[in-house]
Amino acid sequence: MSKYDIIVLGSGPGGYVTAIRASQLGFKTAIVEKESLGGVCLNWGCIPTKALLKSAQVFEYLKHAEDYGLSVKEADKDFDAVVKRSRGVAEGMSKGVQFLMKKNKIDVIEGFGKLKPGKKVEVDGKDYSADHIIIATGARSRELPSLPQDGEKVIGYREAMTLKKQPKKMIVVGSGAIGVEFAYFYNSMGTDVTIVEYLPNVVPVEDEDVSKQLERSFKKNGIKIMTSAEVTNVDTSGKGVKATVKTKKGEEVLEADVVLSAVGIKTNIENIGLEDVGIVVDRDKILVNDYYQTNIPGYYAIGDVTPGQALAHVASAEGILCVEKIANMHVEALDYGNIPGCTYCSPEIASVGLTEKAAKEEGYDIKVGKFPFSASGKASAGGNKDGFVKVIFDAKYGEWLGCHMIGAGVTDMIAEAVLGRKLETTGHEVLKAVHPHPTMSEAVMEAVADAYDEVIHL
Amino acid sequence: MSKYDIIVLGSGPGGYVTAIRASQLGFKTAIVEKESLGGVCLNWGCIPTKALLKSAQVFEYLKHAEDYGLSVKEADKDFDAVVKRSRGVAEGMSKGVQFLMKKNKIDVIEGFGKLKPGKKVEVDGKDYSADHIIIATGARSRELPSLPQDGEKVIGYREAMTLKKQPKKMIVVGSGAIGVEFAYFYNSMGTDVTIVEYLPNVVPVEDEDVSKQLERSFKKNGIKIMTSAEVTNVDTSGKGVKATVKTKKGEEVLEADVVLSAVGIKTNIENIGLEDVGIVVDRDKILVNDYYQTNIPGYYAIGDVTPGQALAHVASAEGILCVEKIANMHVEALDYGNIPGCTYCSPEIASVGLTEKAAKEEGYDIKVGKFPFSASGKASAGGNKDGFVKVIFDAKYGEWLGCHMIGAGVTDMIAEAVLGRKLETTGHEVLKAVHPHPTMSEAVMEAVADAYDEVIHL
Repeated sequence: MSKYDIIVLGSGPGGYVTAIRASQLGFKTAIVEKESLGGVCLNWGCIPTKALLKSAQVFEYLKHAEDYGLSVKEADKDFDAVVKRSRGVAEGMSKGVQFLMKKNKIDVIEGFGKLKPGKKVEVDGKDYSADHIIIATGARSRELPSLPQDGEKVIGYREAMTLKKQPKKMIVVGSGAIGVEFAYFYNSMGTDVTIVEYLPNVVPVEDEDVSKQLERSFKKNGIKIMTSAEVTNVDTSGKGVKATVKTKKGEEVLEADVVLSAVGIKTNIENIGLEDVGIVVDRDKILVNDYYQTNIPGYYAIGDVTPGQALAHVASAEGILCVEKIANMHVEALDYGNIPGCTYCSPEIASVGLTEKAAKEEGYDIKVGKFPFSASGKASAGGNKDGFVKVIFDAKYGEWLGCHMIGAGVTDMIAEAVLGRKLETTGHEVLKAVHPHPTMSEAVMEAVADAYDEVIHL
Repeated sequence: MSKYDIIVLGSGPGGYVTAIRASQLGFKTAIVEKESLGGVCLNWGCIPTKALLKSAQVFEYLKHAEDYGLSVKEADKDFDAVVKRSRGVAEGMSKGVQFLMKKNKIDVIEGFGKLKPGKKVEVDGKDYSADHIIIATGARSRELPSLPQDGEKVIGYREAMTLKKQPKKMIVVGSGAIGVEFAYFYNSMGTDVTIVEYLPNVVPVEDEDVSKQLERSFKKNGIKIMTSAEVTNVDTSGKGVKATVKTKKGEEVLEADVVLSAVGIKTNIENIGLEDVGIVVDRDKILVNDYYQTNIPGYYAIGDVTPGQALAHVASAEGILCVEKIANMHVEALDYGNIPGCTYCSPEIASVGLTEKAAKEEGYDIKVGKFPFSASGKASAGGNKDGFVKVIFDAKYGEWLGCHMIGAGVTDMIAEAVLGRKLETTGHEVLKAVHPHPTMSEAVMEAVADAYDEVIHL
């Protein structure tokens, strides 16, 4: 029986990063993967969707070349080539992880891993033991009872990024990050897209102002949006799909070629031996402490299978922290209140901390500042005037409670707020940090200035 | 005689921002401008060049549409339309400043202002007095004796952004931000471009690694680069220009339609009455203290006319600080060691703090980390694999000494380093600030990790 210091179950951005950090810290490490190295993120999530979205963005430039003093004849997309590019990027990244495993001397065990008592993992009938076993099996697309996925007419994100044929009409159910990213992508490619969202606003976890701005931008681009709406039934018996949508006004039947179900995730915790070992699970999540230890010593869990935000960067951070703690390093528990979230449609969305509503609900007396990109010189020069930066400060102590951005490139701008908040900055310090001109990032400084009635360009 | 609390001389990003902040603080304020509100930055610098560069960027996408699974026939640029768009953006911004002046009840005095003793400014024969006079007259393109500008064949940045006809061949003398931005723009539009740089590296103020990367990227795109080279003579007597370039190998004569001189700036301090008032000038700069007071009470100077970096955001920050001090607010002197610099060619460049060489020269024992975008998932998905983030830390105390970036969108990423350095972050804190995945900004976290031998994706 092979014996390791650490075995990691699952090689997504939680698992493979954990394994690398474990190896760096001197642990003999193995990783178990049933499919492709890199997991959903690299193969079916973060990375290939960003490749699709880049094609969509470039296609928008092609369609609007005249706005920039340029001209094209017959701008067109080759849907297959767009998908193929995306697959190529994913494959390249997965090979990169393969290289990293080899470089870090991590054994890759191919197959479906099942936990056994006594700190063992069984893969294809063979047992492997370790001092520490870290569960990082991630999650998959959640299926609603009213919306069973058949993989052809009713699909999840996975099929949505490899459709053989571009649908003429698509219904996207759910408007979280995955839903709106695909809605944007397919609309840009020329598909007629309708978003159906159960809650009153699209991207419902975001600040309401962000939701409203995205709705405006999407509608301007021809995406139809139904909020406070629910798909109660789908009929796939005919040529396409007939979806019954219930709204406040009553029921309506929409026809489409494909319905994309993007209503959240379901953790991959079935048949991995949790029950045999006795690991406690609650509401689809494995319960862990601040250092990702489950109730059974020697077994840990990180990433989407645990209660924190189901995001790649959270999984990576958790895994690193988990093995650093195993290595007896001094570690600080992760601050789940300072995790940024990004959505890569156009305009992009990025946020961290409390929304205005949440800050009020938590009883804070707040100062709110907002700076629209329409007042930014760089945004004007780049033709990116949609969107804004909104900041929320505690009025009493100046704590930066939340930052909410929507606009071009904001996903690369939110790190400033994450670091600033980690370092317990006040608004005054952000304001006096000289932001370069002309950049979109000046909008952060100006939004803070607005919160303190010192804004210059409004 | 009209009497003000504050008169600002010059309405560039130093002057107009100063005036707005002054007005916010309750001062009766006037601003004197001889040309267009917004100064060089808005009308002939930062903003219109970014518009040109955006057209260039989109044109690159048109030319490489197939890389993204797209196709175009006959992609072309309309040089006049590109220039016209740029002028339109500049005019829009200048009108914006006009609006801001009105909104903030700032009197705009049109004409050339001349300082007089007794805290007065004369404009077109009329005197205006103020308790505080702030000089913000900025700078213009510097002329080398060996390279006199005739505005047609040998030009400065101002002519370079409004050429009536696109030159077939262009020589760009000087490879600072202005030089390389125009080199990139014209090359992208189809002009045959040669850069002549006096120093051994292009963008010589940047970290050497950045200079080398830019040189590689530019050469790949067909831009010719001559370093340690000097234009010793230009002959404009014929149809085009003949420039004699002296290199280590000897002399060479290059022919071109236009030579762009981008060898720095000359301050606008002539004929504005400095001598009459007795204000001290040294090496083309007005001398000021930490609060921008000149040697003569009541007279202040900010922006390019003072010794700090000649950058729009520095001018704005100086102006705000200057009037806040006049208003008896508690102010902290500007930290000139924490001013970011940005260059908007492709790949973009952004940096703050010490270069590796400067850090060593200052005697620091350093830790250096570097993360190439070729190892970034977001960069792969976006087709932006050129470039890197490089960070420099003090080995002893963990102080973040410098951050140097080259790559797509980095000008919007440097604010994180500016704020982090202002807040006296250590590398460990940057590393443990969870950067969102997948973004280009992860490269900052990974570069820091590299400095501490904890990098994951290398």
